[in-house]
Amino acid sequence: MSTTVKTKWVGDMVFDAEINGHHLLMDADPEWGGKNAGPRPKPLLLAALAGCSGLDIVSILNKMQEKDYTFEIESEAESTSEYPITYHTILLKFLFTGETLHQDKIVKAVTLSTERYCGVSAMLKKSTNIIVKIFINGKEVI
Amino acid sequence: MSTTVKTKWVGDMVFDAEINGHHLLMDADPEWGGKNAGPRPKPLLLAALAGCSGLDIVSILNKMQEKDYTFEIESEAESTSEYPITYHTILLKFLFTGETLHQDKIVKAVTLSTERYCGVSAMLKKSTNIIVKIFINGKEVI
Repeated sequence: MSTTVKTKWVGDMVFDAEINGHHLLMDADPEWGGKNAGPRPKPLLLAALAGCSGLDIVSILNKMQEKDYTFEIESEAESTSEYPITYHTILLKFLFTGETLHQDKIVKAVTLSTERYCGVSAMLKKSTNIIVKIFINGKEVI
Repeated sequence: MSTTVKTKWVGDMVFDAEINGHHLLMDADPEWGGKNAGPRPKPLLLAALAGCSGLDIVSILNKMQEKDYTFEIESEAESTSEYPITYHTILLKFLFTGETLHQDKIVKAVTLSTERYCGVSAMLKKSTNIIVKIFINGKEVI
């Protein structure tokens, strides 16, 4: 399958990417002449990683009849200091809240995504150390 | 340096990522229960790749006094057919239009970004074959 994203330079340090029919502005860091018209490009990798695994996990938990919860993901990246500046480590925290949650189902859903299904994770882990942590109601379980 | 992106599940298959203070919705493919409230997560990698190199290139060309042009980037990815579904190849087309452009400066700026400066490119090329093509006024020059 083929996927195309078209990105146009719209002036200054702003680029407009068209993704699945949606427009996303990206802008440079103010240190590099940007004006924060949109996010920096590189942190989009962290959103893609969270979104990819998040969708897997919600889908898997739904099949397990685990439906009554809130769910957030924090992606914290540490960068190299030399060019090209890359993320050498990403800490991926999966934060679940709910009174009827089953820890075994949560752990299984997260593990299936991060180790088997999530293509973004599979791609980024070739260049980055991805550390996964799971919290249920504020308590770290893995 | 540390970078954090927070992503919340907002219901159905929709996630809201906060990146540099901007909110970006992501949604699953309609085939997987999504309603196109935002882009799919994985193509964000293609936007990040284009934006990262695009910013480098505009910045380098500016230093070279090359300023009078329009500039677009097409990122075309081919996916694997097995899980995890990843991009095995990305064709990155840099499309410049302008009457006073110098081919040598364009080629140098693109090459400096894709081979030395762009961190997103450096990360993705560990898992993906990235093919770079440059077009000036519709003519392929590399």
